[in-house]
Amino acid sequence: MQDEKNRRAPIPYVPIGTIHTPFTDITGMPIQPTGARGIRGSVAIFPEYAEGLKDLAGFSHLFLIYAFHLSPPYQLTVVPFLDTTPRGLFATRAPRRPNPIGLSVVRLIQVRGTTLVVEDADILDGTPLLDLKPYVPAFDSYPDASSGWLVQNAQSARSVRSDERFR
Amino acid sequence: MQDEKNRRAPIPYVPIGTIHTPFTDITGMPIQPTGARGIRGSVAIFPEYAEGLKDLAGFSHLFLIYAFHLSPPYQLTVVPFLDTTPRGLFATRAPRRPNPIGLSVVRLIQVRGTTLVVEDADILDGTPLLDLKPYVPAFDSYPDASSGWLVQNAQSARSVRSDERFR
Repeated sequence: MQDEKNRRAPIPYVPIGTIHTPFTDITGMPIQPTGARGIRGSVAIFPEYAEGLKDLAGFSHLFLIYAFHLSPPYQLTVVPFLDTTPRGLFATRAPRRPNPIGLSVVRLIQVRGTTLVVEDADILDGTPLLDLKPYVPAFDSYPDASSGWLVQNAQSARSVRSDERFR
Repeated sequence: MQDEKNRRAPIPYVPIGTIHTPFTDITGMPIQPTGARGIRGSVAIFPEYAEGLKDLAGFSHLFLIYAFHLSPPYQLTVVPFLDTTPRGLFATRAPRRPNPIGLSVVRLIQVRGTTLVVEDADILDGTPLLDLKPYVPAFDSYPDASSGWLVQNAQSARSVRSDERFR
């Protein structure tokens, strides 16, 4: 029983910075980085973490791990932006998740002090950053991975924009 | 001031399952999925989230987002497993992070009720799962991304094993 309780204990995370983008409203946003190509944003890392940014400039892409801080309570079945069929939440990238954690690969343009200039950020302005990691193709790139129900739809993420459904 | 306080407010996350692998000790583990090729593990999703697993079986790869639950306090400069030079923490995938959140791409072998059978999991047995997302090459695969200081070293992640340094 104690074990079971431990396994379910909440884990607190503290923002390490704030993501800034031109997207100030959750409606009308690109729904994936492929739909935010060339859109510039920035990540303001809190000053106490400055030392940890050393050596980052050599990477062309980063993972941003962030809080979907405006996401309403989760639903286990959702109709994703790219579909008209209800899908299991964990087979989607929808923001209304039991743990509303977002993950995006962005292009790193420049490291300017504690500000990271990025492109392709499909992220709401003001989003709290939890972690960033270098994107390493040898670990992270699987071009031949199969995309399940998204196989017909992933390409249209370039043009589809969000609507009201995840408000 | 209130704004600043809000931006730094802790965010609690609750495990949604437990990751099981043959790796019961943090020393001697593979340090990336490329070093865990073919090693089988499983993810036991807590039963209340079962409905969210629908449609997952069509994907060949998943992102697991998990807590580095045994990670000691963070250091902003680390000597990574793949290097002998101190590096900025955020330019590495080291587990001792301000928010100890792990990210791995694993291969999905089978969905068996609320158990996901996976391969390539470079993860400690008993690790709390925070979220899982389908891996979608159109969003996530950047084979030409440049790997910064890791450019010479990423390939050796296939053979290097962890040691005591992140205990």
